[in-house]
Amino acid sequence: MSTKTIRVQADLLATNKQAAAAIRRELRGRGILAVNLLSSPGSGKTTLLESLADRLKGRYRMAVIEGDIETERDAERIRRKGVPAWQITTGGACHLEARMIGKVLGEVPAEIDLLFIENIGNLVCPASYDLGEDVRCVLLSSPEGDDKPGKYPQAFLSADCLILTKTDLNPHLPFDPARAAAEALAIKPALRVFSVSALRGDGVDDLAAYFVEALERLRSGRA
Amino acid sequence: MSTKTIRVQADLLATNKQAAAAIRRELRGRGILAVNLLSSPGSGKTTLLESLADRLKGRYRMAVIEGDIETERDAERIRRKGVPAWQITTGGACHLEARMIGKVLGEVPAEIDLLFIENIGNLVCPASYDLGEDVRCVLLSSPEGDDKPGKYPQAFLSADCLILTKTDLNPHLPFDPARAAAEALAIKPALRVFSVSALRGDGVDDLAAYFVEALERLRSGRA
Repeated sequence: MSTKTIRVQADLLATNKQAAAAIRRELRGRGILAVNLLSSPGSGKTTLLESLADRLKGRYRMAVIEGDIETERDAERIRRKGVPAWQITTGGACHLEARMIGKVLGEVPAEIDLLFIENIGNLVCPASYDLGEDVRCVLLSSPEGDDKPGKYPQAFLSADCLILTKTDLNPHLPFDPARAAAEALAIKPALRVFSVSALRGDGVDDLAAYFVEALERLRSGRA
Repeated sequence: MSTKTIRVQADLLATNKQAAAAIRRELRGRGILAVNLLSSPGSGKTTLLESLADRLKGRYRMAVIEGDIETERDAERIRRKGVPAWQITTGGACHLEARMIGKVLGEVPAEIDLLFIENIGNLVCPASYDLGEDVRCVLLSSPEGDDKPGKYPQAFLSADCLILTKTDLNPHLPFDPARAAAEALAIKPALRVFSVSALRGDGVDDLAAYFVEALERLRSGRA
Protein backbone atom coordinates (compact mmCIF):
# COMPACT_ATOMS: atom_id res chain seq x y z
CA MET A 1 0.00 0.00 0.00
CA SER A 2 1.15 3.53 -0.73
CA THR A 3 1.75 6.06 2.06
CA LYS A 4 -1.38 7.94 0.92
CA THR A 5 -3.55 4.82 1.22
CA ILE A 6 -2.21 4.06 4.68
CA ARG A 7 -2.91 7.62 5.83
CA VAL A 8 -6.52 7.53 4.56
CA GLN A 9 -7.02 4.16 6.33
CA ALA A 10 -5.61 5.57 9.59
CA ASP A 11 -7.92 8.62 9.32
CA LEU A 12 -10.93 6.34 8.79
CA LEU A 13 -10.02 4.20 11.79
CA ALA A 14 -9.50 7.25 14.04
CA THR A 15 -12.90 8.70 13.01
CA ASN A 16 -14.50 5.29 13.58
CA LYS A 17 -12.92 5.01 17.04
CA GLN A 18 -14.43 8.35 18.11
CA ALA A 19 -17.88 7.35 16.86
CA ALA A 20 -17.56 3.97 18.64
CA ALA A 21 -16.61 5.64 21.93
CA ALA A 22 -19.73 7.83 21.74
CA ILE A 23 -21.93 4.78 21.07
CA ARG A 24 -20.35 2.89 23.99
CA ARG A 25 -21.00 5.80 26.35
CA GLU A 26 -24.61 6.11 25.22
CA LEU A 27 -25.39 2.40 25.45
CA ARG A 28 -23.74 2.02 28.86
CA GLY A 29 -25.71 5.05 30.03
CA ARG A 30 -28.90 3.32 28.91
CA GLY A 31 -27.86 0.06 30.60
CA ILE A 32 -27.73 -1.86 27.29
CA LEU A 33 -25.03 -4.47 26.63
CA ALA A 34 -23.89 -4.44 22.98
CA VAL A 35 -22.39 -7.61 21.47
CA ASN A 36 -20.60 -7.59 18.09
CA LEU A 37 -20.66 -10.96 16.28
CA LEU A 38 -17.88 -11.54 13.73
CA SER A 39 -17.33 -14.51 11.42
CA SER A 40 -16.99 -15.84 7.90
CA PRO A 41 -20.16 -16.00 5.80
CA GLY A 42 -22.31 -18.93 6.86
CA SER A 43 -20.73 -19.64 10.25
CA GLY A 44 -24.15 -19.52 11.86
CA LYS A 45 -24.48 -16.01 13.30
CA THR A 46 -28.18 -15.60 12.44
CA THR A 47 -29.12 -19.12 13.53
CA LEU A 48 -27.32 -18.51 16.84
CA LEU A 49 -29.28 -15.27 17.34
CA GLU A 50 -32.55 -17.13 16.65
CA SER A 51 -31.59 -19.70 19.26
CA LEU A 52 -30.59 -17.00 21.79
CA ALA A 53 -33.95 -15.28 21.20
CA ASP A 54 -35.71 -18.51 22.24
CA ARG A 55 -33.50 -18.83 25.34
CA LEU A 56 -33.80 -15.22 26.54
CA LYS A 57 -37.52 -14.85 25.84
CA GLY A 58 -39.52 -13.57 28.80
CA ARG A 59 -36.37 -12.89 30.85
CA TYR A 60 -34.34 -10.36 28.86
CA ARG A 61 -35.29 -8.11 25.94
CA MET A 62 -32.96 -8.35 22.98
CA ALA A 63 -32.68 -6.41 19.75
CA VAL A 64 -30.53 -7.04 16.69
CA ILE A 65 -28.76 -4.86 14.13
CA GLU A 66 -28.09 -6.95 11.03
CA GLY A 67 -25.25 -6.13 8.64
CA ASP A 68 -25.26 -7.46 5.10
CA ILE A 69 -24.02 -6.36 1.72
CA GLU A 70 -27.42 -6.99 0.16
CA THR A 71 -30.89 -8.27 1.19
CA GLU A 72 -33.09 -7.84 4.26
CA ARG A 73 -33.21 -11.60 4.84
CA ASP A 74 -31.47 -11.82 8.20
CA ALA A 75 -33.51 -9.03 9.82
CA GLU A 76 -36.68 -10.76 8.58
CA ARG A 77 -35.56 -14.04 10.22
CA ILE A 78 -34.94 -12.25 13.53
CA ARG A 79 -38.26 -10.38 13.42
CA ARG A 80 -40.08 -13.69 13.00
CA LYS A 81 -38.78 -14.49 16.52
CA GLY A 82 -40.59 -11.40 17.84
CA VAL A 83 -37.29 -9.55 18.27
CA PRO A 84 -36.87 -6.00 16.92
CA ALA A 85 -34.26 -5.93 14.15
CA TRP A 86 -32.77 -3.30 11.85
CA GLN A 87 -31.05 -4.24 8.60
CA ILE A 88 -28.03 -2.27 7.45
CA THR A 89 -27.14 -3.08 3.84
CA THR A 90 -23.73 -1.73 2.93
CA GLY A 91 -24.19 -2.20 -0.82
CA GLY A 92 -20.64 -3.49 -1.20
CA ALA A 93 -18.66 -2.40 1.87
CA CYS A 94 -17.00 -5.34 3.58
CA HIS A 95 -17.59 -4.41 7.24
CA LEU A 96 -19.85 -2.36 9.48
CA GLU A 97 -18.60 0.97 10.83
CA ALA A 98 -19.59 2.76 14.04
CA ARG A 99 -21.36 5.61 12.20
CA MET A 100 -23.74 3.03 10.61
CA ILE A 101 -24.65 1.78 14.09
CA GLY A 102 -25.01 5.37 15.32
CA LYS A 103 -27.72 6.04 12.73
CA VAL A 104 -29.88 3.17 14.06
CA LEU A 105 -29.31 3.80 17.77
CA GLY A 106 -32.11 6.33 18.19
CA GLU A 107 -34.64 3.71 17.14
CA VAL A 108 -33.57 1.11 19.75
CA PRO A 109 -36.30 1.07 22.46
CA ALA A 110 -35.34 2.12 25.98
CA GLU A 111 -36.35 -1.21 27.54
CA ILE A 112 -33.80 -3.31 25.59
CA ASP A 113 -31.25 -5.27 27.65
CA LEU A 114 -29.02 -6.83 24.99
CA LEU A 115 -28.22 -5.35 21.58
CA PHE A 116 -26.61 -7.85 19.22
CA ILE A 117 -24.85 -6.58 16.10
CA GLU A 118 -24.35 -9.18 13.38
CA ASN A 119 -21.45 -7.97 11.28
CA ILE A 120 -20.92 -8.59 7.54
CA GLY A 121 -19.81 -12.19 6.95
CA ASN A 122 -16.07 -11.59 6.66
CA LEU A 123 -13.31 -12.92 8.92
CA VAL A 124 -10.89 -10.14 7.93
CA CYS A 125 -12.09 -6.54 7.64
CA PRO A 126 -14.66 -6.25 10.49
CA ALA A 127 -11.91 -7.02 13.03
CA SER A 128 -10.44 -3.52 12.55
CA TYR A 129 -13.67 -1.61 13.29
CA ASP A 130 -14.85 -0.96 16.84
CA LEU A 131 -18.65 -0.57 16.80
CA GLY A 132 -18.97 0.58 20.41
CA GLU A 133 -19.71 -2.94 21.65
CA ASP A 134 -18.87 -4.18 25.13
CA VAL A 135 -18.34 -7.78 24.07
CA ARG A 136 -16.92 -8.99 20.77
CA CYS A 137 -17.42 -12.63 19.78
CA VAL A 138 -15.83 -14.42 16.86
CA LEU A 139 -17.64 -17.51 15.55
CA LEU A 140 -15.83 -20.42 13.93
CA SER A 141 -17.96 -23.20 12.47
CA SER A 142 -16.60 -26.75 12.37
CA PRO A 143 -16.75 -27.07 8.54
CA GLU A 144 -14.40 -24.09 8.17
CA GLY A 145 -11.54 -26.11 9.64
CA ASP A 146 -9.48 -26.00 12.82
CA ASP A 147 -6.60 -24.18 11.08
CA LYS A 148 -8.43 -20.87 10.72
CA PRO A 149 -7.34 -18.92 13.86
CA GLY A 150 -3.69 -18.93 12.78
CA LYS A 151 -4.60 -17.87 9.25
CA TYR A 152 -6.95 -15.02 10.29
CA PRO A 153 -5.39 -13.94 13.61
CA GLN A 154 -6.75 -10.39 13.91
CA ALA A 155 -10.38 -11.51 14.31
CA PHE A 156 -9.39 -13.81 17.18
CA LEU A 157 -6.99 -11.30 18.76
CA SER A 158 -9.65 -8.58 18.82
CA ALA A 159 -12.38 -10.81 20.33
CA ASP A 160 -13.40 -11.43 23.95
CA CYS A 161 -15.09 -14.71 23.22
CA LEU A 162 -14.81 -17.56 20.70
CA ILE A 163 -17.93 -19.49 19.78
CA LEU A 164 -17.29 -22.83 18.04
CA THR A 165 -20.50 -23.41 16.08
CA LYS A 166 -22.17 -26.30 14.22
CA THR A 167 -20.76 -28.88 16.63
CA ASP A 168 -23.52 -31.27 15.44
CA LEU A 169 -21.48 -31.70 12.23
CA ASN A 170 -18.28 -32.75 14.03
CA PRO A 171 -18.82 -36.52 13.53
CA HIS A 172 -18.85 -35.93 9.75
CA LEU A 173 -15.78 -33.69 9.54
CA PRO A 174 -12.01 -33.71 9.81
CA PHE A 175 -12.25 -31.05 12.55
CA ASP A 176 -10.47 -31.04 15.91
CA PRO A 177 -12.24 -28.60 18.29
CA ALA A 178 -9.36 -28.83 20.79
CA ARG A 179 -6.89 -27.76 18.11
CA ALA A 180 -9.11 -24.85 17.02
CA ALA A 181 -9.48 -23.62 20.61
CA ALA A 182 -5.78 -24.06 21.40
CA GLU A 183 -4.76 -22.13 18.30
CA ALA A 184 -7.16 -19.29 19.15
CA LEU A 185 -5.98 -19.23 22.78
CA ALA A 186 -2.35 -19.06 21.64
CA ILE A 187 -3.30 -15.82 19.84
CA LYS A 188 -5.49 -14.46 22.67
CA PRO A 189 -5.10 -16.27 26.01
CA ALA A 190 -8.00 -14.35 27.62
CA LEU A 191 -10.61 -15.65 25.12
CA ARG A 192 -13.67 -17.31 26.67
CA VAL A 193 -14.47 -20.38 24.58
CA PHE A 194 -17.97 -21.78 23.99
CA SER A 195 -19.16 -24.67 21.82
CA VAL A 196 -22.68 -24.61 20.43
CA SER A 197 -25.00 -26.31 18.03
CA ALA A 198 -27.64 -23.63 17.50
CA LEU A 199 -29.74 -26.03 15.42
CA ARG A 200 -29.93 -28.52 18.31
CA GLY A 201 -29.67 -25.91 21.07
CA ASP A 202 -26.55 -27.48 22.62
CA GLY A 203 -24.41 -25.03 24.58
CA VAL A 204 -26.64 -21.99 23.95
CA ASP A 205 -27.70 -21.68 27.62
CA ASP A 206 -24.06 -21.31 28.73
CA LEU A 207 -23.49 -18.62 26.14
CA ALA A 208 -26.69 -16.79 27.12
CA ALA A 209 -25.53 -16.87 30.77
CA TYR A 210 -22.21 -15.33 29.73
CA PHE A 211 -24.01 -12.40 28.07
CA VAL A 212 -26.34 -11.96 31.05
CA GLU A 213 -23.33 -11.86 33.43
CA ALA A 214 -21.70 -9.21 31.24
CA LEU A 215 -24.96 -7.22 31.30
CA GLU A 216 -25.10 -7.39 35.08
CA ARG A 217 -21.46 -6.29 35.35
CA LEU A 218 -22.22 -3.34 33.06
CA ARG A 219 -25.28 -2.31 35.07
CA SER A 220 -23.40 -2.53 38.37
CA GLY A 221 -20.72 -0.26 36.88
CA ARG A 222 -18.06 -2.96 36.84
CA ALA A 223 -17.86 -3.21 33.02
CA MET B 1 -17.42 6.72 2.27
CA SER B 2 -16.00 10.19 1.67
CA THR B 3 -15.21 11.43 -1.84
CA LYS B 4 -11.49 11.19 -1.00
CA THR B 5 -11.79 7.54 0.00
CA ILE B 6 -13.70 6.70 -3.15
CA ARG B 7 -11.07 8.42 -5.31
CA VAL B 8 -8.19 6.51 -3.66
CA GLN B 9 -10.12 3.23 -4.14
CA ALA B 10 -10.71 4.04 -7.84
CA ASP B 11 -6.99 4.81 -8.32
CA LEU B 12 -6.03 1.50 -6.70
CA LEU B 13 -8.42 -0.45 -8.92
CA ALA B 14 -7.18 1.29 -12.09
CA THR B 15 -3.55 0.51 -11.19
CA ASN B 16 -4.53 -3.08 -10.42
CA LYS B 17 -6.32 -3.43 -13.77
CA GLN B 18 -3.19 -2.38 -15.66
CA ALA B 19 -1.02 -4.85 -13.75
CA ALA B 20 -3.61 -7.60 -14.33
CA ALA B 21 -3.69 -6.92 -18.09
CA ALA B 22 0.11 -7.29 -18.25
CA ILE B 23 -0.04 -10.60 -16.35
CA ARG B 24 -2.80 -11.90 -18.64
CA ARG B 25 -0.75 -11.05 -21.75
CA GLU B 26 2.35 -12.72 -20.33
CA LEU B 27 0.59 -15.92 -19.23
CA ARG B 28 -1.34 -16.25 -22.49
CA GLY B 29 1.94 -15.75 -24.36
CA ARG B 30 3.43 -18.61 -22.35
CA GLY B 31 0.35 -20.82 -22.97
CA ILE B 32 -0.54 -20.98 -19.26
CA LEU B 33 -4.16 -20.90 -18.10
CA ALA B 34 -4.59 -18.95 -14.86
CA VAL B 35 -7.53 -19.73 -12.57
CA ASN B 36 -8.49 -17.47 -9.64
CA LEU B 37 -10.34 -19.28 -6.81
CA LEU B 38 -12.52 -17.10 -4.57
CA SER B 39 -14.53 -18.06 -1.50
CA SER B 40 -15.20 -17.62 2.20
CA PRO B 41 -12.62 -19.03 4.61
CA GLY B 42 -12.93 -22.79 4.85
CA SER B 43 -15.01 -23.41 1.72
CA GLY B 44 -12.50 -26.02 0.58
CA LYS B 45 -10.21 -24.23 -1.87
CA THR B 46 -7.03 -26.00 -0.76
CA THR B 47 -8.65 -29.42 -0.50
CA LEU B 48 -10.05 -28.96 -4.01
CA LEU B 49 -6.56 -28.08 -5.31
CA GLU B 50 -5.14 -31.22 -3.65
CA SER B 51 -7.82 -33.28 -5.38
CA LEU B 52 -7.20 -31.60 -8.74
CA ALA B 53 -3.47 -32.31 -8.34
CA ASP B 54 -4.27 -36.03 -8.04
CA ARG B 55 -6.55 -35.89 -11.11
CA LEU B 56 -4.21 -33.93 -13.39
CA LYS B 57 -1.03 -35.78 -12.39
CA GLY B 58 0.95 -37.14 -15.36
CA ARG B 59 -1.29 -35.35 -17.89
CA TYR B 60 -1.00 -31.63 -17.12
CA ARG B 61 1.48 -29.69 -15.01
CA MET B 62 -0.08 -27.41 -12.44
CA ALA B 63 1.32 -24.80 -10.09
CA VAL B 64 -0.35 -22.87 -7.28
CA ILE B 65 -0.03 -19.39 -5.83
CA GLU B 66 -1.47 -19.39 -2.32
CA GLY B 67 -2.84 -16.24 -0.71
CA ASP B 68 -3.23 -16.00 3.05
CA ILE B 69 -3.09 -13.33 5.68
CA GLU B 70 -0.70 -15.39 7.78
CA THR B 71 1.05 -18.81 7.65
CA GLU B 72 2.64 -20.93 4.90
CA ARG B 73 0.28 -23.84 5.65
CA ASP B 74 -1.61 -24.01 2.36
CA ALA B 75 1.52 -23.87 0.18
CA GLU B 76 3.01 -26.68 2.28
CA ARG B 77 -0.09 -28.82 1.71
CA ILE B 78 0.12 -28.27 -2.06
CA ARG B 79 3.88 -29.01 -2.17
CA ARG B 80 3.24 -32.34 -0.46
CA LYS B 81 1.31 -33.24 -3.64
CA GLY B 82 4.47 -32.66 -5.68
CA VAL B 83 3.07 -29.43 -7.10
CA PRO B 84 5.15 -26.21 -7.07
CA ALA B 85 3.52 -23.61 -4.81
CA TRP B 86 4.29 -20.06 -3.71
CA GLN B 87 2.81 -18.56 -0.59
CA ILE B 88 1.86 -14.89 -0.54
CA THR B 89 1.11 -13.69 3.00
CA THR B 90 -0.54 -10.29 2.98
CA GLY B 91 -0.03 -9.67 6.71
CA GLY B 92 -3.52 -8.24 7.07
CA ALA B 93 -4.72 -7.23 3.59
CA CYS B 94 -8.06 -8.82 2.76
CA HIS B 95 -7.47 -9.74 -0.92
CA LEU B 96 -4.72 -10.48 -3.41
CA GLU B 97 -3.74 -7.79 -5.94
CA ALA B 98 -2.25 -8.22 -9.38
CA ARG B 99 1.12 -6.72 -8.38
CA MET B 100 1.53 -9.50 -5.77
CA ILE B 101 1.00 -12.11 -8.50
CA GLY B 102 3.39 -10.21 -10.78
CA LYS B 103 6.22 -10.61 -8.25
CA VAL B 104 5.90 -14.41 -8.28
CA LEU B 105 5.40 -14.83 -12.02
CA GLY B 106 9.11 -14.96 -12.92
CA GLU B 107 9.52 -18.07 -10.74
CA VAL B 108 6.75 -20.07 -12.47
CA PRO B 109 8.48 -22.71 -14.65
CA ALA B 110 7.97 -22.53 -18.43
CA GLU B 111 6.46 -26.04 -18.65
CA ILE B 112 3.43 -25.26 -16.45
CA ASP B 113 -0.03 -25.71 -18.04
CA LEU B 114 -2.39 -24.53 -15.30
CA LEU B 115 -1.66 -21.86 -12.71
CA PHE B 116 -4.18 -21.81 -9.86
CA ILE B 117 -4.36 -18.78 -7.59
CA GLU B 118 -6.02 -19.39 -4.24
CA ASN B 119 -7.24 -16.02 -3.02
CA ILE B 120 -7.58 -14.88 0.61
CA GLY B 121 -10.63 -16.53 2.22
CA ASN B 122 -13.10 -13.66 1.83
CA LEU B 123 -16.31 -13.59 -0.20
CA VAL B 124 -16.30 -9.79 -0.48
CA CYS B 125 -13.08 -7.91 -1.25
CA PRO B 126 -11.27 -10.27 -3.68
CA ALA B 127 -14.18 -9.92 -6.15
CA SER B 128 -13.03 -6.39 -7.06
CA TYR B 129 -9.45 -7.32 -7.98
CA ASP B 130 -8.56 -8.78 -11.38
CA LEU B 131 -5.40 -10.89 -10.98
CA GLY B 132 -4.87 -11.48 -14.71
CA GLU B 133 -6.67 -14.83 -14.60
CA ASP B 134 -8.52 -16.32 -17.57
CA VAL B 135 -11.06 -18.18 -15.44
CA ARG B 136 -12.52 -17.04 -12.13
CA CYS B 137 -14.31 -19.57 -9.94
CA VAL B 138 -16.29 -18.87 -6.81
CA LEU B 139 -16.69 -21.74 -4.34
CA LEU B 140 -19.71 -22.10 -2.07
CA SER B 141 -19.65 -24.92 0.47
CA SER B 142 -22.91 -26.52 1.58
CA PRO B 143 -22.54 -25.57 5.29
CA GLU B 144 -22.41 -21.86 4.35
CA GLY B 145 -26.04 -21.98 3.28
CA ASP B 146 -27.96 -21.66 0.03
CA ASP B 147 -28.82 -17.98 0.69
CA LYS B 148 -25.29 -16.69 0.16
CA PRO B 149 -25.28 -15.69 -3.56
CA GLY B 150 -27.95 -13.02 -2.98
CA LYS B 151 -26.14 -11.69 0.08
CA TYR B 152 -22.69 -11.51 -1.56
CA PRO B 153 -23.61 -10.87 -5.21
CA GLN B 154 -20.36 -9.33 -6.50
CA ALA B 155 -18.33 -12.55 -6.05
CA PHE B 156 -20.90 -14.49 -8.11
CA LEU B 157 -21.35 -11.73 -10.70
CA SER B 158 -17.61 -11.52 -11.33
CA ALA B 159 -17.09 -15.30 -11.68
CA ASP B 160 -17.14 -17.58 -14.73
CA CYS B 161 -17.82 -20.71 -12.75
CA LEU B 162 -19.52 -21.69 -9.49
CA ILE B 163 -18.23 -24.72 -7.60
CA LEU B 164 -20.61 -26.07 -4.95
CA THR B 165 -18.27 -27.87 -2.52
CA LYS B 166 -18.58 -30.33 0.39
CA THR B 167 -21.58 -32.06 -1.20
CA ASP B 168 -20.83 -35.06 1.06
CA LEU B 169 -22.27 -33.02 3.96
CA ASN B 170 -25.62 -32.35 2.23
CA PRO B 171 -27.51 -35.17 4.01
CA HIS B 172 -26.66 -33.52 7.36
CA LEU B 173 -27.56 -29.94 6.42
CA PRO B 174 -30.51 -27.67 5.71
CA PHE B 175 -28.98 -26.86 2.29
CA ASP B 176 -30.76 -26.86 -1.07
CA PRO B 177 -28.16 -27.04 -3.89
CA ALA B 178 -30.81 -26.21 -6.51
CA ARG B 179 -31.72 -23.01 -4.66
CA ALA B 180 -28.04 -22.02 -4.32
CA ALA B 181 -27.42 -22.58 -8.04
CA ALA B 182 -30.64 -20.82 -9.09
CA GLU B 183 -29.83 -17.79 -6.96
CA ALA B 184 -26.30 -17.59 -8.40
CA LEU B 185 -27.60 -18.02 -11.97
CA ALA B 186 -30.13 -15.22 -11.40
CA ILE B 187 -27.15 -12.95 -10.67
CA LYS B 188 -24.95 -14.30 -13.51
CA PRO B 189 -26.80 -16.45 -16.06
CA ALA B 190 -23.56 -17.46 -17.85
CA LEU B 191 -22.08 -19.17 -14.76
CA ARG B 192 -20.96 -22.78 -15.28
CA VAL B 193 -22.02 -24.74 -12.21
CA PHE B 194 -20.15 -27.73 -10.77
CA SER B 195 -20.79 -29.79 -7.65
CA VAL B 196 -17.89 -31.52 -5.93
CA SER B 197 -16.88 -33.37 -2.83
CA ALA B 198 -13.12 -32.98 -2.91
CA LEU B 199 -12.74 -35.30 0.09
CA ARG B 200 -14.52 -38.13 -1.76
CA GLY B 201 -13.41 -37.04 -5.23
CA ASP B 202 -17.00 -36.69 -6.55
CA GLY B 203 -17.32 -34.27 -9.46
CA VAL B 204 -13.64 -33.32 -9.61
CA ASP B 205 -13.08 -35.00 -13.00
CA ASP B 206 -15.76 -32.82 -14.61
CA LEU B 207 -14.20 -29.72 -13.15
CA ALA B 208 -10.71 -30.76 -14.29
CA ALA B 209 -12.10 -31.31 -17.81
CA TYR B 210 -13.54 -27.77 -17.76
CA PHE B 211 -10.11 -26.32 -16.95
CA VAL B 212 -8.41 -28.45 -19.60
CA GLU B 213 -10.93 -27.28 -22.23
CA ALA B 214 -10.27 -23.66 -21.26
CA LEU B 215 -6.53 -24.33 -21.57
CA GLU B 216 -6.98 -25.79 -25.04
CA ARG B 217 -9.10 -22.82 -26.11
CA LEU B 218 -6.40 -20.47 -24.84
CA ARG B 219 -3.64 -22.34 -26.70
CA SER B 220 -5.63 -22.40 -29.94
CA GLY B 221 -6.07 -18.63 -29.63
CA ARG B 222 -9.81 -18.84 -29.02
CA ALA B 223 -9.65 -17.62 -25.39
